Amino acid sequence: MTQQRITPRTLKGFRDFLPEAMIPRQRLIDTARRVYRSYGFSPIDTPALEYLEILAGKGSEETDKQLYKFQDAGGRWVGLRFDLTVPLARFAAQHINELGTPFKRYHIATVWRGEKQQRGRYREFMQCDFDTIGTRSIAADVETTLVIHDLFRTIGFDRFTIHVNNRMVLTGLLERLDLADRAANVLRALDKLAKIGPDRVADEMIATAGCTAEQAGQVLELAKISGTNNDVLRQLEPLVAGSETGMAGVGRLKELLDGVRAGGAPDERVKLDVSIARGLDYYTGTVFETFLDALPDIGSVCSGGRYDNLAELYTKQELPGVGASLGLDRLLAAMEELDMIEKVATPAPVLIPYFDKARLHDYLKLAAAVRASGIGVEVYPEPKKLGQQLKYADRRGFRVALIAGDNEFESNTCQIKDMQTGDKQDVPLEADAVSVIAAVKEILGAS
Amino acid sequence: MTQQRITPRTLKGFRDFLPEAMIPRQRLIDTARRVYRSYGFSPIDTPALEYLEILAGKGSEETDKQLYKFQDAGGRWVGLRFDLTVPLARFAAQHINELGTPFKRYHIATVWRGEKQQRGRYREFMQCDFDTIGTRSIAADVETTLVIHDLFRTIGFDRFTIHVNNRMVLTGLLERLDLADRAANVLRALDKLAKIGPDRVADEMIATAGCTAEQAGQVLELAKISGTNNDVLRQLEPLVAGSETGMAGVGRLKELLDGVRAGGAPDERVKLDVSIARGLDYYTGTVFETFLDALPDIGSVCSGGRYDNLAELYTKQELPGVGASLGLDRLLAAMEELDMIEKVATPAPVLIPYFDKARLHDYLKLAAAVRASGIGVEVYPEPKKLGQQLKYADRRGFRVALIAGDNEFESNTCQIKDMQTGDKQDVPLEADAVSVIAAVKEILGAS
Repeated sequence: MTQQRITPRTLKGFRDFLPEAMIPRQRLIDTARRVYRSYGFSPIDTPALEYLEILAGKGSEETDKQLYKFQDAGGRWVGLRFDLTVPLARFAAQHINELGTPFKRYHIATVWRGEKQQRGRYREFMQCDFDTIGTRSIAADVETTLVIHDLFRTIGFDRFTIHVNNRMVLTGLLERLDLADRAANVLRALDKLAKIGPDRVADEMIATAGCTAEQAGQVLELAKISGTNNDVLRQLEPLVAGSETGMAGVGRLKELLDGVRAGGAPDERVKLDVSIARGLDYYTGTVFETFLDALPDIGSVCSGGRYDNLAELYTKQELPGVGASLGLDRLLAAMEELDMIEKVATPAPVLIPYFDKARLHDYLKLAAAVRASGIGVEVYPEPKKLGQQLKYADRRGFRVALIAGDNEFESNTCQIKDMQTGDKQDVPLEADAVSVIAAVKEILGAS
Repeated sequence: MTQQRITPRTLKGFRDFLPEAMIPRQRLIDTARRVYRSYGFSPIDTPALEYLEILAGKGSEETDKQLYKFQDAGGRWVGLRFDLTVPLARFAAQHINELGTPFKRYHIATVWRGEKQQRGRYREFMQCDFDTIGTRSIAADVETTLVIHDLFRTIGFDRFTIHVNNRMVLTGLLERLDLADRAANVLRALDKLAKIGPDRVADEMIATAGCTAEQAGQVLELAKISGTNNDVLRQLEPLVAGSETGMAGVGRLKELLDGVRAGGAPDERVKLDVSIARGLDYYTGTVFETFLDALPDIGSVCSGGRYDNLAELYTKQELPGVGASLGLDRLLAAMEELDMIEKVATPAPVLIPYFDKARLHDYLKLAAAVRASGIGVEVYPEPKKLGQQLKYADRRGFRVALIAGDNEFESNTCQIKDMQTGDKQDVPLEADAVSVIAAVKEILGAS
């Protein structure tokens, strides 16, 4: 070869997913999809590349800085999407008349941000969003909470807490305190409460929102309220009394909690938490954060909320909605830490070693028969020593090996080896492999 | 709002996928995944962005021209992947020692090419590749054919034909004709046989490969051979007699056809076709193309082949392999034309209209009970007139509506409406909804 070899490597902040990482990742994505779909959320997709004017200035200053942008061969300025919310807004503005409302969509797709390099932050990652658009009904907020609950139950979590709040409560208090016009800055400060503590939050409110110390103190008073959901509701009522917005917010929180209970999510997993605000300006009603009880410090693994107007940058049609987003990478890291991830590098549980060179056709027939029963089977692709192939089976995490050579095929038997326990059994080998299938199913069912 | 509104639109050559398009698309992707996995192919993923030096000059002149490339914020030249083969080569070179061989992977992911705009060509599209790396064994070629066969059967096709050939046969003939050093140009010309006919292929061979008219004639003679697989094999043998490569090629074709038959793909779906060559230089053995009998003119919907050295640009380790790629967009267009695609815009078959405002909790409970049985259920998110909600159910393609108001809940019944036939039935409504579930399953099972 004339060309110089090129060192194979990925860009900083980008990752290859090898099978052992990709298999649990896909399983998690599949679970999210299945749960979203079971509530009637439809899949959509949008281009990775959009006109830059669609993307730039639509997120935060930070996402603007992180935008991958360039001129394409036709001289158009384009960018890689940095989230799925801006594309959804553009998509909804463009297609909502065709789609009709209510419109429920999920979108699981890759996004790109040229983040500063730091541990655990990637420049390419996946988002898993679901939203209900075109309704202000509390039923949609209830359903969003139920989806989150179902999602974590289906993934396999027992102990997790969905924290809910309603921005209207704080808005009501700010109205009473004459701070309504500075709500965004107050919220941004308040959102840091868990991270930086009440004193520094108060300082920030005074500095950026121009609050008095007393006003900041009252806002922090609200954020301090805790107890059972009913306790919190009782304490909120006097704080917002006189503010229509605030009272409506408390009313919606009650409806939300009652609805969620009726829908099957038990009280201990849904916590009214007045300290969460979610800094993003566009949330206007219910807000959600989800914490794993075993790992609260990793932060929220599923967050979202209600907004009044999704697509105002692209259409005059008002599109209220509510939704949430699963933090896939963070959750996978947590599941790894909690030992919830099985380490396998094969999606098929059964290996048929190919050690008798003359018997390829028999191996293929056996594989086809077992596969027809719905069990994945790999035939080792070249004749090699059995021991070598069993090592391969072990390394990849195959659960079962079906071992047969000339003797076995002559006598219509097959040895079934449980790769986890090492147990072996001889089973009759019929043309439809019915005995083999039954034995394999028993082993797979037990694990 | 102070900002000017931005017209919502996508870039030329890029598409939004609305639910009605996305649902069948995902179903097809899921089928491909399921089949690939059932043979032990593991999922992997690689970054959308790679160092430009990894991508540029690794495909054809055409893909080079079509590459989306730019300098990132750190001044690095980067590009968007234009296929999944170059990333696989880079990936394999980088990780093969960790992965071990044989390594079987599938990769279903988006690629980008700045193609000239023409009907049915997109600048962003999905590829669905699977490959077995690290073995020269014919068993892997057999399995690749079986995967293609299984894939189309599972998608729902009955009449399709997998055309197979082996490049060594033609290479053998070229050796005999003293044209071995001009093989690439001969192959590129021959690959156009179906499109431009034998005369223009001969002209191209003479012009680009410097063949004599007689040599070109002999090559075309080979490409003309047809008949049953056995007929073709019989006619090939004398043509390659004396060439070791050619005889080995015929031998491997025999082994391939025998193996594929043993593995369960019937003869009528596997056709030895000496006219296919697949222009890509890197194929060196078996080549595949797949045609739908009902729509042969759309071209191959699944193609691939065997190569001697996947990753020579990135590593000195020789990595032979074999694989194929499903033409997702082309196949979806074909399935649409063949009326194989159900038009629905919801992934959930059941809608519960929410028309009795006071009964939200009852609707939520009913939905949870039905959903727990594995059936997807949407609760309409806001109280509206029943008629309006049934129109919505109809437009979205819900299969069943579960209708209950105050009277029904009082008397513990539920009306089940089959949205396709219009049939209605009243069913007892228990707490676990067991009668409702049974009735819904019957309707879903019948469709």
